[in-house]
Amino acid sequence: MIQYRQIDTEKARCFCETLFAAYGFSADESKTITDVLLRADLYGIESHGVQRLVRYNDEITSGQVDVKAKIQVVHETAISACIDANKVMGQLAGVQAMKLAMEKARNSGCGMVTVRNSNHYGIAGYYTEMAAAEDLIGVSVTNTEAICVPTFGSQAMTGTNALALAMPAEPFNFSYDASTTVVPRGTLEVFRKNGQPLPDQWALDEEGNPCTDAARVIDNIIAKAGGGIAPLGGLGTLNGGHKGYGLSVIVDIFSAVISCGLTSNHVNRKPGHTGICHYFMAIDYGIFGDKPLIKQNMSKFLQELRDSKKAEGCSRIYTHGEKETELMSQRINGQIPVNEKTLNEIKIIADKLGIKNL
Amino acid sequence: MIQYRQIDTEKARCFCETLFAAYGFSADESKTITDVLLRADLYGIESHGVQRLVRYNDEITSGQVDVKAKIQVVHETAISACIDANKVMGQLAGVQAMKLAMEKARNSGCGMVTVRNSNHYGIAGYYTEMAAAEDLIGVSVTNTEAICVPTFGSQAMTGTNALALAMPAEPFNFSYDASTTVVPRGTLEVFRKNGQPLPDQWALDEEGNPCTDAARVIDNIIAKAGGGIAPLGGLGTLNGGHKGYGLSVIVDIFSAVISCGLTSNHVNRKPGHTGICHYFMAIDYGIFGDKPLIKQNMSKFLQELRDSKKAEGCSRIYTHGEKETELMSQRINGQIPVNEKTLNEIKIIADKLGIKNL
Repeated sequence: MIQYRQIDTEKARCFCETLFAAYGFSADESKTITDVLLRADLYGIESHGVQRLVRYNDEITSGQVDVKAKIQVVHETAISACIDANKVMGQLAGVQAMKLAMEKARNSGCGMVTVRNSNHYGIAGYYTEMAAAEDLIGVSVTNTEAICVPTFGSQAMTGTNALALAMPAEPFNFSYDASTTVVPRGTLEVFRKNGQPLPDQWALDEEGNPCTDAARVIDNIIAKAGGGIAPLGGLGTLNGGHKGYGLSVIVDIFSAVISCGLTSNHVNRKPGHTGICHYFMAIDYGIFGDKPLIKQNMSKFLQELRDSKKAEGCSRIYTHGEKETELMSQRINGQIPVNEKTLNEIKIIADKLGIKNL
Repeated sequence: MIQYRQIDTEKARCFCETLFAAYGFSADESKTITDVLLRADLYGIESHGVQRLVRYNDEITSGQVDVKAKIQVVHETAISACIDANKVMGQLAGVQAMKLAMEKARNSGCGMVTVRNSNHYGIAGYYTEMAAAEDLIGVSVTNTEAICVPTFGSQAMTGTNALALAMPAEPFNFSYDASTTVVPRGTLEVFRKNGQPLPDQWALDEEGNPCTDAARVIDNIIAKAGGGIAPLGGLGTLNGGHKGYGLSVIVDIFSAVISCGLTSNHVNRKPGHTGICHYFMAIDYGIFGDKPLIKQNMSKFLQELRDSKKAEGCSRIYTHGEKETELMSQRINGQIPVNEKTLNEIKIIADKLGIKNL
């Protein structure tokens, strides 16, 4: 079993900011990257939190991330932009792109920004909530390295391909953030660590047959040897796997196709370049009618969902973002759990960079 | 087993146009409704084709559809509109709303139109393909009467809640059109007719427990007695049912919440009023960069998906819209299959309206 240690949230924040500054990022940039990263831990999404420091360290030191690069707007209209991220940290591309989309939404009702040549940007929900915090609807999608096998296929062609949408509501926002695969790769890694067989609808071997061996699936993904994870809806078409497959393609359309970037099946195929692509949209929902009334409709609908009749043995129906909001309120002025393995890895990085360990 | 008869497509078209004119629709309106309806049969989506004439007859004669009503734009900006459909046929609201969205996209790069107080509008893909036919990205969603049970719930709260997206490509467009439930209600009806048990991830009884009895689930839905169909991803959270639940909520946000209309859980609760809501979006993807290049990227990505390695025993990987395009090319100048039960029901309607039977 993995042991966890509780770390003061503020201590973790200071450490991360110092760490990123040591790579050469400005104080502002370090603050931004850290804020995206820590939000994942505050929400309980461990896979996207400080655990990623190891992966980011690899990407920065290998040159996949260019610390000194700046994003560049290569095409722009009143409601849209295409950004070449020039290999900056995904979080920096993401925050700047969403800010641009929000500015366009405030001025023109809607802003859509597509981004190519970026890197992993953390949790998609961070960006959509930037929009919701300013009373806008926020949408964001991102492609990744291919891990998802199309229906009837045996080769991973699309990524985890997360889709996030946030809309303001009382007493808390609706905030959807999920992969278009049945599960993300991190979940398979937990099953491998615990030596458990995978549920039967999750993954495929290199011949496209159902596979419950987590180690085999992960090793195949890394070696690009075939097989991978099933789209949302599972294997074949019985439970709608073709729908999840289509949703993952839609994510690649908005992130990679319209930005003239790399689709998931071409991401991370060349040394020193991931080529990950994102998409951001902000909508001032006042363009459809009376804004307070629309927000009230939204809050009422979500409350009706939460109040609806529970299944036998279930005490609660959640709306999306509810669990994360609750957890963040506990953790923001308190502590986040970090596993010992991650802490050991972080120590090595901190020592190398000559900064005080977490 | 149900018997099918082959009907000349042109004969079916003439019959439907005459039928709708007999209800009091104008020649143009009858043509529009018929075109949406027959497109479903041409695509092989029997549930949304001439089989629906019976349901539409009920809705028109009961006053749920107002034959003489006109839609009304109640809020408008350069890139958006909110329409009150005033109980017109859903197809008429849909075509007019998508035309408005497309006009805005041509003028401003993007058009978003939300519609309240409408009726069932047929296949969502019809509208998105209107946009794709004019070199735009088309998006459409619609809510319906509640049939889908939220994760941990036992009461249907969201609808079939289809989501469609089309984008131009060569040699044929990408055209995604799917419910956000694991299956639509029509599929349960096929299982009931054939006396087959349902797959175990599809449906819930009135206590929120898994249920494989199609008749019980359908009867419960009709009686609003609890239970219903699982969201895409299935029951519970193991295979991502909470993701499908969230997607169904997103459909209600864009169709019902921002239009100030009825969310699925309030649809069809009052006599003479369904209150179904839709949303339409058209994007001129040239707002992101060079249009021919983007279209070329799209065609290349889809071809790579189709060319990727097949699973053992599978000969083909499809992209969305491919099967429908192939079937339509066979049927458009030929025949469509209509089942004998539907033909008998249509005969009764034709006789009542005093028109020549199909």
